[in-house]
Formats: sequence, structure tokens, C-alpha cells
Amino acid sequence: MSSFQKRREIIYDWMAQDGIALVMIEDSEGQRNNAVRWLSGQPGDALLFLSADRRSLLVPWDINMAMLYAEADAMLPYKEFDRLPAKALKGAIERLSIPKGSKIEIPDATPYPKFLRFVEEITDFDVICRKGGVWEEIEKRRAIKDESEIKIYKKIAALTDELINLLEKQICAGKLKTEIDVALFIESESRKRGCDGTGFDTIAAGPGRSFGIHAFPTYTGGIFGGAGLSILDFGLKFAGYTSDVTLTFVGEPLSKTQEKMLSLVEKAYKLAVSMVKPGETGRNIGLAVDTYFGRYRKIMPHGLGHGIGLQAHEAPSLSSRSDNEWILEPGMIFTIEPGLYDPVQGGCRLENDILITETGGEVLTGSRIVRL
Amino acid sequence: MSSFQKRREIIYDWMAQDGIALVMIEDSEGQRNNAVRWLSGQPGDALLFLSADRRSLLVPWDINMAMLYAEADAMLPYKEFDRLPAKALKGAIERLSIPKGSKIEIPDATPYPKFLRFVEEITDFDVICRKGGVWEEIEKRRAIKDESEIKIYKKIAALTDELINLLEKQICAGKLKTEIDVALFIESESRKRGCDGTGFDTIAAGPGRSFGIHAFPTYTGGIFGGAGLSILDFGLKFAGYTSDVTLTFVGEPLSKTQEKMLSLVEKAYKLAVSMVKPGETGRNIGLAVDTYFGRYRKIMPHGLGHGIGLQAHEAPSLSSRSDNEWILEPGMIFTIEPGLYDPVQGGCRLENDILITETGGEVLTGSRIVRL
Repeated sequence: MSSFQKRREIIYDWMAQDGIALVMIEDSEGQRNNAVRWLSGQPGDALLFLSADRRSLLVPWDINMAMLYAEADAMLPYKEFDRLPAKALKGAIERLSIPKGSKIEIPDATPYPKFLRFVEEITDFDVICRKGGVWEEIEKRRAIKDESEIKIYKKIAALTDELINLLEKQICAGKLKTEIDVALFIESESRKRGCDGTGFDTIAAGPGRSFGIHAFPTYTGGIFGGAGLSILDFGLKFAGYTSDVTLTFVGEPLSKTQEKMLSLVEKAYKLAVSMVKPGETGRNIGLAVDTYFGRYRKIMPHGLGHGIGLQAHEAPSLSSRSDNEWILEPGMIFTIEPGLYDPVQGGCRLENDILITETGGEVLTGSRIVRL
Repeated sequence: MSSFQKRREIIYDWMAQDGIALVMIEDSEGQRNNAVRWLSGQPGDALLFLSADRRSLLVPWDINMAMLYAEADAMLPYKEFDRLPAKALKGAIERLSIPKGSKIEIPDATPYPKFLRFVEEITDFDVICRKGGVWEEIEKRRAIKDESEIKIYKKIAALTDELINLLEKQICAGKLKTEIDVALFIESESRKRGCDGTGFDTIAAGPGRSFGIHAFPTYTGGIFGGAGLSILDFGLKFAGYTSDVTLTFVGEPLSKTQEKMLSLVEKAYKLAVSMVKPGETGRNIGLAVDTYFGRYRKIMPHGLGHGIGLQAHEAPSLSSRSDNEWILEPGMIFTIEPGLYDPVQGGCRLENDILITETGGEVLTGSRIVRL
């Protein structure tokens, strides 16, 4: 049984328990959801229907691509439904012979006005749109990587480390001088190694721009490296999955404040990594780092870390936000990325990817603070 | 008065007419909305509040970036509200002294479960979430570019053409051999010219992969050009705005079917451009092309074109979809991009950007079918 089929079986079981006759998953512009890929292999732009009698129907925008990449019991081109989601849902109900009066669960990301349209058009059915439900089940299952995914991540981590080492060498040797040089080097080297590309826009921010959490534009013709703090945040995408690491490159001379920032970020990073183990909560680790920075009157303006997978940001969360209820479990893979930013001094961030094991945490990637 | 202020004034006027006391616009991960940038200059990750007494409050994730790029009557870091949208909305209501019982409009993209949370938390107010309303007003206004935006587009078009000419030269001379070569050449040359980068992932698909509407991965180490049909779809992003063009590169020998596909796409393109004028509907032009292809038993699996702007896809639509009600008006800028795809023969697409003038259409960009 393929990984995709295994995952669908889990959802079918959940549907039976919860009395849901049909689940609709939508991956479309403005409403991205990689769960379609996670459950069928289809890399994008499709609706996926799962019925309680354990059948899957894929409705892709590009049927040729779907034939090549996707796995489902049946496929119908989206064009057949005039590329209208409500029409496709109606068609799936007919095709899969869903009995009238059944419960149909649609994406929790469905905008309220669109939800009303579904309800108007799919009469005779109980249309359900909620936080929790099948979406929570999928989110939880995706957060814990299965064997095939962990294998992929070991490979991505090795590729990412290869690039980190190459980057350190090339930047220290002065061969990559500008932000563009650095970012395009990553893009090119990653694709040469069989990656799908980068997992998100590489952020290469020289000393004048590193104060931005996510510098804008993400890279320019400006100098990377040199005196002060330069941030390099990138991820490699392989078989759909992305890594996410950040290095800070440090050029002399540094101000005392800059040295202090670096030291605090490194210590916060170590503190966070030391807390990682099954049963610990993401929020606790986030709060510990916030408290640590707070002692030095520093504020980290973003969350401490986030799960990675088919999306660059997924569950679990390591944020100190009051609504963060994630508990760490073996198989979870996430970032730890403390950072401090100052409009004058610049920014520094250190980020690696961590796999939760039965006993603790395995740091998968080797990004670091590099002294030029 | 700045362009941003002018746009806000339009929205304030609309709010007064519609009796809306507060509008909340959200640009966040999973709920992107460039209207924040259009109204304030803030390039990303922020909430923007507009009150009926003509005040604007920006709540950015990164306050340092906002100070540099954005314009609003007041700014508060998102961190102050624990990065929770409902909390920020409550805070804005207090800060802007919105009277109890007032109508508050939240994004039409708000997921249904999130909508319920707002309604629970913001008691004493009438929380409105609808298609239409201020979102339709913003979409319509954004579809018609103002003078400053048309000026930007003339500049982007010139830069895009510069790249098109360079690409033709380099590819024909055999200097750019692989999909990676082509895509990274665009990335690098665009940023060197002061662009923010590319407007979306460049699609460079050699003959073996051009059958995909949006090839996946978008580019690889494979050969670009050579015998058959290669598709190059890219856009340059400048001052936040993106162009969007597609060239097909054609290498001998071609099959009769491939020649026919090229000829049909070129004729469909000319047909569409000839129909462009104020008062024409986007759907009519889309239908004309569908009908034209249909005569030769061909199906175009995607829409004919779409508006461009701060987003790569925005209003108006030139799709033949039954729900497309857009009427062309002077100032609109959109793509026309007929294409045909075949798993064996490959794909071809021709795409340029068109500005609607008082009397017809001005083709801004010069992409074309290039014979190698």
C-alpha cells in the first residue's frame, strides 16, 4: 500500500467514526492546501474528494500533470465543472452516490461568503465547515512525519548541510559578493542536486537590511557579508518537502551591542534545543526564550519555531502565543529560530530543523553563526 | 496627497455611503491581501484599519519595515496584540473609539470558523463578512490602474521587453542551455535592474515538459529549447507590481500537429487582441477563443487572461466562466494568454500584457513565438 493510500485509510477511518459521508479538500489559488498532495501526490491545483465508502476522486486543473503524479481511484478534469468548486462538489456527490441528508465536510479555510454559496447550492445535504473536524485530524497526522517522510527529511538535511558548507566556503572566499549571488547560488545548486527548488523565497540580507525579520525585497544587488550582521534564511524543497534554516554571517568590526545580540541569540537557541523532548509543549519553549530575552530587555518579534513539511509553515507551533496548545511528539519536525532585530545594529537569527525522537530531539541541520 | 492617501479617501467615501464604521484588512500567511499595500504602502504581513472618521491604523508584524515603507495615521506593532487578529480588532475599536452598535466589515476571505470567533469576541458590534461590500469596491478600484500605476507599468513593460530581447539572443546563441540557466538569468537580470525580483515562480519548460499548463517543477536541470516546443512564462516585479508574459521557443523539426497548435494559438491571440476595447466583456473574449479552438476540436484548459497588478492574478477576468461579469474599462491592465497542451506534442502559449485605453487596447509587452 502506498503512503498516500495509507494516509487516505486513516482519514476514511476517521470519517466512519465521525459520521462524515464526504470530505472535500481544495488546493487552489487563494486557498492553498497541501493536504491534496499529502493524500494523493497531486502537486497542486485540484479538488480531492474522499467518501465514507473509501473511494477517492481527484478533480485536477491540469489532468495531464495529475496522470503523471497523482494517485486516486478516479480522476475528472476540473474543466468539466466549469472550474467552479460548488459545481464540482455537486458532481462528486452524484459520481460517488452520496446519500441525501449526509454530512459533507468542506475546508475550514472556506471564506464565509463562499460557505453560504455551498449551502445554497448543495441542498439536501448537511454542509459542515468548522475548525477541528477532519482538518484537525489531517493537521495532527501531517505534524507527525511517517517513515517515508523522515527518510526524505534525512536526505533534505544532508543536501541543506552540503549547501551550508559550500556557502560558508564561497562567501568567506569572497566568491559570492552580493545578495543576488548568494540567493541564485542556492537556487541553482539546489536544482542541480534534484531539488524542486527552494521552499520559499530566499532571504539574503546584508548588514544594511538585516534588521527586517523578512527583509524586503528578499534579496537585491547589495553587498552580502562585510562589516556587521548579514542574515541568510533559506530552505531546500525536495519531493515536495522543505527544509528551513538561517545563518548569520558576521563581519568585523562589531559593536558591543551586536556582540551582545549574537551571544543572546546563540544562548536562546541552546536553551530552546535543550528543552526539546516528547511531552514538552511548544508554548513552554517559546515562553522560555521570550523570558530569557526579556531579562535583557530584548523582544523577539516573531514565534520561536514552526513545523515544516509540504508547507514551509505547518504544525506544530513553538510560539509563545496563548492559543498554542501543541505538545511535542516523536516524528515531529520543526524549526527553532530565535532572532533579534534592531534598525541600527541589524539583525541576527539562528535557525535549524529538529526531529523529535523517542527520547529527545535530533538537530537535523547544521546552520550556524559564521565569523567572516 | 499621496496615491495611498487618495485611495484611502475613496474608501472613506464609500464607507460613509454604506454606513460602515470600521474596515479591517488583513494581509497574513494563509490570507494574503495586497490591498494593505495598495492603501498604505506596507509590503506585507499587517492588519490595516480604516475608520469612518477618516483615520488609518496599521498593525504590522514588522514595525521596523513599516516605518520604512508604510504610510498611515498611526502604527502599532502586531506583537502588542499577541499576534491575534481578533485581539487586534478589539484594540483598534478602542483606539479609534468606534461607537458600540456600529457596523464593522471584515475580509470576505475570512474563513467561516474564524468569522464565528470574531462574532463571539466582538460583541456589541455588527460584524459584516460578505462578498461585495468594500471588497468589491477595492477590487474594482484596483482593476483600474491610476496614473502612478500606469507609469509603473510602462516602466515594467520596458524592462520586460529588454529581458525578452536578451533572452531571445542568449537562447538562440546557445548561451542559455538549461531551464535553470534561463530562469536564473531572468532572476538575476531583473534584480540587477532594480526589480523586486520575479512576480511569480518562472516556468521554464523544455519540450519534454511543456505539456503542463504550469510545469512542475517550474524549472529543472533539463534542456530548454531544442526540437519541439519550449514554454517560458515569467513576470518582473517592480515597485510591487508584476508583469506576466509567456514566450514559446520552437525548435525544428516540428510535427504537423505542433505546427497546427502554434498557428491556432497565434490566431486565437490575434482574435482576442482585436476584440479588446472599453465596453467589451471579458467573458465574450474568452468565449470567442474557446469557440475558435472548439472549431478545431481543441480545448484550452485554462482561462484566457487575468488582470495584473500588486498580485499576479487580479481583476478583471477574461475567462469564459459563466460567473465572469467583468466589463473592460480604460486603465485596466491584463494578460491575454491562449494556450494548447498535449502530453505527446508538448504545449504552446503566447501571453502579453494589455492596457485598455479610451479607444481600444495597447499591447504593452512584446513576447512572441520564437523560431530557434
